[in-house]
Order: sequence, then structure tokens, then C-alpha cells
Amino acid sequence: MPYPENFAGFQVNGPETWLEFNKNEFQPKPFGDYDVDIKIECCGVCGSDVHTLSGGWGEQNFPLAVGHEIVGKAIRVGPKVSLIKEGQRVGVGAQSYSCLECRQCKNENETYCTKQLDTYGAIWPDSGIVSQGGYSSHVRTHEHWVFPIPDALPSTDAAPMLCAGLTAYSPLVRNGCGPGKKVGIVGLGGIGHFGVLFAKALGAEVWAISRSHAKEADAFKMGADGFLATADKDWNKAHLMTFDLIINTANSFEDFDLDAYLSLLDVHAKWVSVGLPEGDGIKVRNQTFLSNGCFFGSSHLGSRRETLEMLQLAADKGIKTWVEEFPISDKNLAEVMTKLKKNDVRYRFCMTNYDEQFGA
Amino acid sequence: MPYPENFAGFQVNGPETWLEFNKNEFQPKPFGDYDVDIKIECCGVCGSDVHTLSGGWGEQNFPLAVGHEIVGKAIRVGPKVSLIKEGQRVGVGAQSYSCLECRQCKNENETYCTKQLDTYGAIWPDSGIVSQGGYSSHVRTHEHWVFPIPDALPSTDAAPMLCAGLTAYSPLVRNGCGPGKKVGIVGLGGIGHFGVLFAKALGAEVWAISRSHAKEADAFKMGADGFLATADKDWNKAHLMTFDLIINTANSFEDFDLDAYLSLLDVHAKWVSVGLPEGDGIKVRNQTFLSNGCFFGSSHLGSRRETLEMLQLAADKGIKTWVEEFPISDKNLAEVMTKLKKNDVRYRFCMTNYDEQFGA
Repeated sequence: MPYPENFAGFQVNGPETWLEFNKNEFQPKPFGDYDVDIKIECCGVCGSDVHTLSGGWGEQNFPLAVGHEIVGKAIRVGPKVSLIKEGQRVGVGAQSYSCLECRQCKNENETYCTKQLDTYGAIWPDSGIVSQGGYSSHVRTHEHWVFPIPDALPSTDAAPMLCAGLTAYSPLVRNGCGPGKKVGIVGLGGIGHFGVLFAKALGAEVWAISRSHAKEADAFKMGADGFLATADKDWNKAHLMTFDLIINTANSFEDFDLDAYLSLLDVHAKWVSVGLPEGDGIKVRNQTFLSNGCFFGSSHLGSRRETLEMLQLAADKGIKTWVEEFPISDKNLAEVMTKLKKNDVRYRFCMTNYDEQFGA
Repeated sequence: MPYPENFAGFQVNGPETWLEFNKNEFQPKPFGDYDVDIKIECCGVCGSDVHTLSGGWGEQNFPLAVGHEIVGKAIRVGPKVSLIKEGQRVGVGAQSYSCLECRQCKNENETYCTKQLDTYGAIWPDSGIVSQGGYSSHVRTHEHWVFPIPDALPSTDAAPMLCAGLTAYSPLVRNGCGPGKKVGIVGLGGIGHFGVLFAKALGAEVWAISRSHAKEADAFKMGADGFLATADKDWNKAHLMTFDLIINTANSFEDFDLDAYLSLLDVHAKWVSVGLPEGDGIKVRNQTFLSNGCFFGSSHLGSRRETLEMLQLAADKGIKTWVEEFPISDKNLAEVMTKLKKNDVRYRFCMTNYDEQFGA
């Protein structure tokens, strides 16, 4: 295929028609010295896509192609690119820009850069162009946010790691997950299943915590050492103050008994919520935190270094993403979004067969 | 005065009559091998006293003498006591029991022992007797919870440190307060004023954060390096992501813009709330924590070791509590509680002249 002036992608026009995907051409931002153009091979489907398109996270810049778990081939690299080689298999996650100059950026906290931009839906400051995601033919990304994929990792295993995987991995490694630590993963969806896989690979004792027992067998197959169902009577009683870290991946605070969850934490241990439920939040009382002096917080993606380490860990340990593949099309995008909205996914979808839609 | 069989104290009968202090005799718990009897000299007045007596914290065990910032003289020590000598000037704070055998107790987290008992209002398990506080002639306490007071510290300076002081000091030292760190103290009441004094003594850059400018001059006199009034427009803008630690001592979440406060924190830095507002809490959204990956938590008092270190630091650095003294009586107790309920205190009250009420 000749090198394109414009890219093509499946865009949505707004939340009223969020399941109508239109294949449009769009203009990428101007090619910069540090940019990499990637011909996309596959892209994982993230809860963020649903929240963004359906209006749950508020106003967005439409028309918009979402998708931010991208794997493909670097087909063009800018003159100053040193991290990526043309022809390399690479990935792009949910973030595509940070200034690389501020204190946060210099301390491997580039996801907390105040100038950070998302892979889709953000407005590039120089050109005013809205960034478009991975349900597209190509993506153009600064090399800092482009990650070589280890050979041992299949593309459809790697893609979902670039948002869901990293969102679980970063707070695990930043908060001491490892041998001798008891780690809880609340919510067994796309992020949660990576939480179990990575916490286990990092050497911790891992407990999956879910509302019912429906996913118990899966959790043990993923490597969980234990399983707690919060619908069970006194489910937390045998584990009070025993967890060193809990990552909460639940996507909703409905019927959420936060006090019971926090009671699991050891003194000063942390609860890190990485899901972003719609709605106006959950009430907390200082008294809740008093019995163990625990902490409630959140975490945003992870650094470039952590991304590379995560991919290498997955390659080295043979971590298998639980992924279901769908050839990309307007119809299949509508189907997977509908399923995701209903939480009907075990545990990640990945759009494939890009050549059929966008040319080889 | 002969050694008493019973102690005497100013008790309240219930929340309906919470400003009526009746001088009653009461029976202390049986004297144990590790117990110390203390003839009380003075006792600081804590917000907890108001919350407890007036019903804000729910049901309590009445009749009750409150007061848990006690300084006095050890007049009798049990046969196994090794930490305290008869005749020594000593203090007792808000906690009077922990098992000393569990994992928390063995890790200097005895305030998080699941068997912990409060200095007043708790039921001693063996005898069923309700613990009575420091608006009394004497207090009987296990030696672990009795602290020698350094000679250089006046009793009325030391007393308020035993709850308010420790409540500020422990989360400061547990979360890295020291040279090179920028520390915020939200709320300039009894605990907050100790927050400023101790954070400064520990070498940090200290910012007092208050609703208005009313206490600004006082904050600078206490040693604050800066002052922020949240009523000012854009009060937080010049300080986004610059604080390493914030201790929140505010006693109410009314009109509390948590997002603005948390925006001050550096990446993964902590907000530690040590006030215990009445009511059902404050709403938090994961999104609030996302821009800096910060943490919200609480802290409960501090360990024996921290108490001793705090008192020594205060003695060594000549830290002066801002304290107003009132001779203990039913009338004066009613007055100071009324003032405290209205936050009309700068910055701590201490009841004195115990000999006049209880004999020399």
C-alpha cells in the first residue's frame, strides 16, 4: 500500500449514535522529528472506549475513533527517533504525549505530567487536531510512547497489556508487590485479570476478590492463591488486617461496602483504585480509615520503563492474556462495545484482521 | 491525702445534660501488676471530649468523666512495673490498653491493636468497669501507656501534647516530614497548631492552610513558612503538585473542596486526615486522585516510642504549647466545653489547680 497522506478509521459521531462506527478518512497531526508512524495490526478493546463514546465521562471531541491498546509495525520514523527502528513491531497505549521536561517527567512520572495527552480524543496544541485511536489504519506517535514488543509475545496478547495490563502492573510494582506480600485484586474484568496474572508473576500471594463465585474457577486458572466472594456472609472476617496491598479494578461503586474492603488492609497499607466508575463517587469517613491507618488512592497508567519491564516480564514468564479476537468492522465494533457495556467479556477483546479493512 | 480506695471526678450523665459536670466518687479497675496510679496535676481539653459528651460520636457509657491529656505524679507502681518510678512526673494520653502481644503491638503499631481501649469510656474486659478520664483526682494506667515527662517541659505544655500533639506528630514522622520536604497543615486548631510546631521542629518547610486569614499572624509566630487561605481566589494554583505531605486536622467537612486540597500533593503523596468530623463523610471520586496518584488516609494517635521522642523533641527545641489554663471546676469545665464547641480556642485549654478540688 502506498504511504498515505491521510489515515482511515472507524469513527463515532457522538453519544447518541455511539454504536454506529463510520469508516472515515482523517488527517493526522503533522509528522514531527520524534514521531513514529505505525501501521496497525490489532487493537484491544478497553472500558474507556465505552465510557468515552457513550457519554459516561462527559463531553468529548467527535467524530472520534477510539482504541488505545495498539500493536502494529513501525513504517516510518522521524529523523531524531532513536528508540524505535523502522520495521519493528511496536505498541502504543492510552497516553501519547508528555512534555518530558517537567519534574514529573524527569522522575518517571510522565503519566502525571500536566501537559499529558491521551491517545484518542485529545487536542494536539500546535495543530488543533484531535488525536484518533487504534480502530484505524495507522497511528502517529512520539517515540517515547511507542514500545517495542518482545518477539515471544503474540500481538493480540500484548495489545491489551498496553492499557489494561499497565494499569494493573504499575501500582503493583510501585507499592511493593512481590514475594512475602499478600495482594488483593478486586474485580475480575480486563484489568483485574491482569492484576492476578502480574501479581502472581511478581511472586506475591494473590487473592481475587469478586462479588460472586462465578469467576472463581477462572481466577484459580490465572494463578490466584485464594478467592473471596463479597456476597458470602462474613467474607472479610478471616482476613482482617492481613493484606499488604489491594488493587481495586471494579468499574462501579454500586452496593460497594468500602469499609469491609478496607478492613482487609494491614496497618498503613494501600487501596489503589484504578477503575474509573461513572457517577459522583463514594462517601468516605475518616473513621473508616482509623482502625488500620490505611490509605485510599488511585494510579494512572505507568511509565515507559514500567511498560517495557511489564512486556519483558510477560515474555519471560509466558503470561497469557485471556483474549477473544474479532475481525475489525463496524458491525463487530458495535458488538464488542455492547458486550463490554454489559460486562459480558472474559476477559479482553482484541480487534484483528486490519488488512481486510485497511489494505495490506 | 491518704491513699484513696475510690477516685473522684467530674462526670456527665448523658448528652442531654452534657454541660453539667457532677463531682462523683467512682471505683477504678482493680490494681494490676503493671499498673501505675497517678495523682493528676492537670489535663488538656480535647475536641474528643465535646464529641463524646454531646453525643456527636454516638452512644457512650455514662456517667463519664472525660479528659485524656493527663499529667500528674506516679504515687503507686505495681510490682512488675519497670518503665515508671514512684514519684515521677508522668503523662497519660487517649489510649490506655493494647494487648502488647499481637503483630500490630510488636511492630510499634499498638494504636492499631484490635484490643485497644480508650482512656475514658471503654469497658475493661475483666472487671466490666468503665474507664474514667482525667477530669478526676487520679487515673490508673498500665505502664506502657504512662510516659515520663522531661524536666524541661512544663506540665501544662506537656499535657496537650499527649493527644493533640501526638496525633499531629506521628503521621509527620511516619510519612517522612523533615528537611527538604514541603508539608501542609490544614486547620489551625489544637492539633493543627502542634502540626505547625512539630513539622517546623522536624526541619520541614511548613505551610498552614486555613479557611480565612484570621489566624495567619499566629501561624507565622508558630513558625510557619507560608500561609494559604482557601477563601482566596485561586488559592491553590501556585502550589499545585508541590506538597510532599498534608496533615488535615479540620474538624468538619462542611464546604470542603477536597479536590482543591488534593491538587496540592506531589505524585503519590499523602493526605492524612486526623480530625474525626461528625456526620457521614465526604464523597470521593477516583478521578480526583488521578492527576497525581495521591492517597487519602488517616492515622490514630502514635506509639509509645513516638510519644517519648515527641516529648524529648519538645524539651530539646523548647517547643511552647499555646495553652490557656482554667482551674478545674464544674463551672469552668462547662465554660471550656462551650468555647471548644464554638471553636473559640487559641489553641488549647488545660484544666489546672487540681489540689483545690481534690485535695493536696
